[in-house]
Amino acid sequence: MTAETSTSIESAKAGGRSLTAIVLAAGKGTRMRSDLPKVLHAVAGRTMLGHVLAAAGEAGANRIAVVVELGQGTVASEIARAAPGASVHPQVERLGTAHAVLAARAALEAGSDDVVIAFGDTPLITGATLTRLRAPLADGAAVAVLAFTAENPTGYGRVLTQSGRVLAIREEKDASESERAVTLCNAGLMALSGTHALALLTRIGNDNAAGEYYLPDAVALAVADGLDVAVVPVDEAEAQGVNDRVQLSVAEATIQARLRRAAQIGGATLVAPETVFLSFDTVLGRDVLVEPHVVFGPGVTVGDHCVIHAFSHLEGATLAQGVSIGPYARLRPGAVLEAGSRIGNFVEMKNARLGEGAKANHLTYLGDAEIGPGANVGAGTITCNYDGVNKHRTTIGAGAFIGSNTALVAPVSVGAGAIVGAGSVITASIPDDALAIARSRQRIIEGVAGGMRAALQAIKASRSKKDD
Amino acid sequence: MTAETSTSIESAKAGGRSLTAIVLAAGKGTRMRSDLPKVLHAVAGRTMLGHVLAAAGEAGANRIAVVVELGQGTVASEIARAAPGASVHPQVERLGTAHAVLAARAALEAGSDDVVIAFGDTPLITGATLTRLRAPLADGAAVAVLAFTAENPTGYGRVLTQSGRVLAIREEKDASESERAVTLCNAGLMALSGTHALALLTRIGNDNAAGEYYLPDAVALAVADGLDVAVVPVDEAEAQGVNDRVQLSVAEATIQARLRRAAQIGGATLVAPETVFLSFDTVLGRDVLVEPHVVFGPGVTVGDHCVIHAFSHLEGATLAQGVSIGPYARLRPGAVLEAGSRIGNFVEMKNARLGEGAKANHLTYLGDAEIGPGANVGAGTITCNYDGVNKHRTTIGAGAFIGSNTALVAPVSVGAGAIVGAGSVITASIPDDALAIARSRQRIIEGVAGGMRAALQAIKASRSKKDD
Amino acid sequence: MTAETSTSIESAKAGGRSLTAIVLAAGKGTRMRSDLPKVLHAVAGRTMLGHVLAAAGEAGANRIAVVVELGQGTVASEIARAAPGASVHPQVERLGTAHAVLAARAALEAGSDDVVIAFGDTPLITGATLTRLRAPLADGAAVAVLAFTAENPTGYGRVLTQSGRVLAIREEKDASESERAVTLCNAGLMALSGTHALALLTRIGNDNAAGEYYLPDAVALAVADGLDVAVVPVDEAEAQGVNDRVQLSVAEATIQARLRRAAQIGGATLVAPETVFLSFDTVLGRDVLVEPHVVFGPGVTVGDHCVIHAFSHLEGATLAQGVSIGPYARLRPGAVLEAGSRIGNFVEMKNARLGEGAKANHLTYLGDAEIGPGANVGAGTITCNYDGVNKHRTTIGAGAFIGSNTALVAPVSVGAGAIVGAGSVITASIPDDALAIARSRQRIIEGVAGGMRAALQAIKASRSKKDD
Repeated sequence: MTAETSTSIESAKAGGRSLTAIVLAAGKGTRMRSDLPKVLHAVAGRTMLGHVLAAAGEAGANRIAVVVELGQGTVASEIARAAPGASVHPQVERLGTAHAVLAARAALEAGSDDVVIAFGDTPLITGATLTRLRAPLADGAAVAVLAFTAENPTGYGRVLTQSGRVLAIREEKDASESERAVTLCNAGLMALSGTHALALLTRIGNDNAAGEYYLPDAVALAVADGLDVAVVPVDEAEAQGVNDRVQLSVAEATIQARLRRAAQIGGATLVAPETVFLSFDTVLGRDVLVEPHVVFGPGVTVGDHCVIHAFSHLEGATLAQGVSIGPYARLRPGAVLEAGSRIGNFVEMKNARLGEGAKANHLTYLGDAEIGPGANVGAGTITCNYDGVNKHRTTIGAGAFIGSNTALVAPVSVGAGAIVGAGSVITASIPDDALAIARSRQRIIEGVAGGMRAALQAIKASRSKKDD
Repeated sequence: MTAETSTSIESAKAGGRSLTAIVLAAGKGTRMRSDLPKVLHAVAGRTMLGHVLAAAGEAGANRIAVVVELGQGTVASEIARAAPGASVHPQVERLGTAHAVLAARAALEAGSDDVVIAFGDTPLITGATLTRLRAPLADGAAVAVLAFTAENPTGYGRVLTQSGRVLAIREEKDASESERAVTLCNAGLMALSGTHALALLTRIGNDNAAGEYYLPDAVALAVADGLDVAVVPVDEAEAQGVNDRVQLSVAEATIQARLRRAAQIGGATLVAPETVFLSFDTVLGRDVLVEPHVVFGPGVTVGDHCVIHAFSHLEGATLAQGVSIGPYARLRPGAVLEAGSRIGNFVEMKNARLGEGAKANHLTYLGDAEIGPGANVGAGTITCNYDGVNKHRTTIGAGAFIGSNTALVAPVSVGAGAIVGAGSVITASIPDDALAIARSRQRIIEGVAGGMRAALQAIKASRSKKDD
Repeated sequence: MTAETSTSIESAKAGGRSLTAIVLAAGKGTRMRSDLPKVLHAVAGRTMLGHVLAAAGEAGANRIAVVVELGQGTVASEIARAAPGASVHPQVERLGTAHAVLAARAALEAGSDDVVIAFGDTPLITGATLTRLRAPLADGAAVAVLAFTAENPTGYGRVLTQSGRVLAIREEKDASESERAVTLCNAGLMALSGTHALALLTRIGNDNAAGEYYLPDAVALAVADGLDVAVVPVDEAEAQGVNDRVQLSVAEATIQARLRRAAQIGGATLVAPETVFLSFDTVLGRDVLVEPHVVFGPGVTVGDHCVIHAFSHLEGATLAQGVSIGPYARLRPGAVLEAGSRIGNFVEMKNARLGEGAKANHLTYLGDAEIGPGANVGAGTITCNYDGVNKHRTTIGAGAFIGSNTALVAPVSVGAGAIVGAGSVITASIPDDALAIARSRQRIIEGVAGGMRAALQAIKASRSKKDD
């Protein structure tokens, strides 16, 4: 079980209160220097926005509203994919975070016990943290702010507290000397009780230098009304936003450390965790051994007692118990490896099933194929699944033996127990227990190799003469 | 020379005194969440227990006694493999470390000048450190304790000293405020003079909350007897034990740093040492260049002036001088590469010898083969060494040229200077200086490819029609 | 744009003053334990000396003089390659740094406004730093020393300053208690005004324990003359020299961090920058995605919107826009990939052009080849470009389809739109729109596979009997 999925357990704590999550995903992201909207950049195999939407779901959100840049169709598509029920609210003007939240006014007006406001560019926030953030609302708080203790607080808004309750959020430029010494900083995320949310948000003004409506101002309004404002702590790393590609790689490193540790604690050996890259949904069983330099794309499940040798690359693959792959195995989506099967080096597998105990150990391509239990696929075997226009399937029966350097021209099937001679090009299906062979008779011409070499050397000499 | 082997030089310092090493290897290792006994988990290509047994040997132990969990046959097998002369002592009850040591009472009763007690789950302890640990015994100490200065001493037993001699080991719970400020901590390992060892150990009681017999209590008994107890310092990292897979990977990282540094000091360039994984016995010559992302399994020796390109994976391989392999070379046990030979990308070699100056540069499998000096093995060559039941050998003579995409069906031999045409399947041996060819005549059917494509497109169209 | 090239912009600041750069490259480098002269060891794909010569050029040096070990022809060759106009000055005796500089006396006597003295074993020094170092000379300073604030100054010469001007450089052994507390340390590099350089350098004496002529003594002489000595700060990391292979790898890590950051800021995503190795001249476009574990050798240019999948290795390759390669792609010098083309896994490409939208996705070797736009090269295709003596070219026309496991025996051409059947060995050129096939008819012998297996088992049994 990964760190990502474990947080879903926490979400059970919300106690039946309804939750609206508003995710602000309209940032320009200029410093990314990218044609791709910032929130669609990925960490651990999932877009940043996808991480935040998942966290909202894990925290129990029954309504999710996402505020997006006007006209960013790719963001809307990602929302439709990652959180099908979410509503999408285009932001027409950029007038500050509170103004952005109100682009989703319809979602607020629909009413809920709790409201959580998150950001599409803080991908490390977990469902567990959002659950903790909304928890004070159930205890009567009107607002809860997420805050971290900063290594270096310069530039952050300080959270001023007394007896565990928030008095104010003070922007750096407005802070006194002693307030600047405070290291508790505003992470930006906020929870509001559904009772007060809309009233507080609509009262936020723009009487400041930039003329913008700032979400943190909700705190001052709540305090002024005598409402209770709670503070919820979070690790500085988890609270970090991503504004450029250096920060994107820092976020990736943080989430990788989290995923690796969870895999290790769960009973997988990562010989060199710093060289293994997991996806948000990677599932590693107990007593799985992962050698150095392995990359897991999304959608991989590895059963107990598997060995993933160095330099392997997996994506959308399912490994049963006791499977061994690599080094240099490349499993693509739809690869299914039954118990005890083995994929060796320089082998690619795509949309193919390898039966129990079957093997393909060297320099092979298995695409759109079904390989029966106990079959042995020799070195250099290629399933020719593509005729330039259509894809076709190859079927290899149980216990069949495919000799090395064989091309299987799909659609074709090899019967159970059949043997294919090395170097064959198989174009017609082979019955069970048959031997198939498609190769030429070997001819030997004695005593000529030396002469051939001399001739080639003469060509070389004449070539270099021309170059003179 | 690696860091591991260099310690054997230190072991010469023991001055002829006999040494019994007792290794406690009976830990449950629950937090490993593994079916494998904890001490059999590996770092740097050797089990943790194997490392400790080797260190005991390097420190000059002429008798090694290992205390194991009752019924763990795999541990006994590893002991038999790693330290053939060692005695194995099953632990019947778990009543504390002193009680565990006494499971090996027979070894103590056999008598020796020095006794060292080590742990199967502290794999980073070197022979040099054990040698230093026993050294005070020769100078008259009855006991020597190994101690490290802890970054954060919380939880460790503190070593209380005066003028370099130990007064007591104080467990955290029994320590006064000022004693807790002590950062010198007990690493657990201990040396005892053979004269006093058994007497001290058998006097340790279990009058404590857990009702267990604690090894560190030997110190208090010795001090009470007016015996001299020495303290021997050790790096905190070296003293760390392994209790879960996170700690296992930390131990791996520590030993890798040690091995990499030794290789660099010895004259090998590791372009990116943090991406190169060595085994405990890896030997790298002078002016070896190792590019990023290389994995050395056990049993590899690399001669001077070799180049190991990126993404290579070696195990049980021997490279003479000036060999170049990779990128993406996979050398398996029994690969022997003579001087100046070359293995290129996507090439696997197993139980095979590559002669002086011979080459196999691309997409090749060489298994159970002998390739003569100066031979050139073309791209896509496969030695078909396995018929589904038996393995057979391939022999390629000096200076032979194997054309690309050739299958050599073993047992078969290619003579010296012979030439094999590209795309051949060679099933019969070829004399010296002969040309062999086994392929079909090429037929060309003009003006049909466009029509074929149209037909395939029609199939595609009819397929998608069906899907509608 | 990389960090390396960006420094050339800074060099425009020198304001038309002439500059002589003297590079000391005669160190023995005993601790490298290498047959290769120290300054020829490489970081980021370029020799250390090459980096320093490039920095000198970027700082505007119009004359470069390199002091080398007598008889090191390989160093002279590297200088001729990296800085063709540079003069080479053998050092006959080792009598200290100032004496070494005077080996290039001829270059000093030729005259210039500014002189900069650098070292062949400090490869991290940038052109920008050398430009900053010489800047005070334009403002009237006679000498400028480069200095860093040391984490731990022990062993370094301290730079004693007052009001930003240097009073003296004090060697550790001569320093008072308070002087030792100074953390500003001499990096060794120095700039001198052309007016004073020769006079100062020739006045340096050797009245010291070692009897050597020390370059830092120029400072005391200048100060005694009432000349102005400036100090120019530099990062400690940038100032580090390389004396052994551990330090070489530290320098590599420092320069890699610099290159990676520049690529990220420029708009490339490095998912795991710590696993990506760039060369000094790597150019990555905007919205390039680089997965973990990728190695860029020298001479690589990657266009916008390319994807470099994990475990790829590139050298001397040019990728146009929207190209995708890997995982496990190996591009060697002369690989040119046109827009939208694709190289898949276990594919090697050398001295070959892949046309727009063309693909070679699996287990292929393309050497000395021209592949037309839209062509599809099937799995396991090999261009047989080498006959054992000569190299030949393969040409594949636009839109051609090469069936899997095909060997193309060069010189050979495949016409536009032509189709090659899987498993063919093509030895004769194929016209446009033709179908070519060169394989054997498949034979099926029914009901024999079981019997064959039984026979092979019998052989196995008789073999093991013999072993008894």
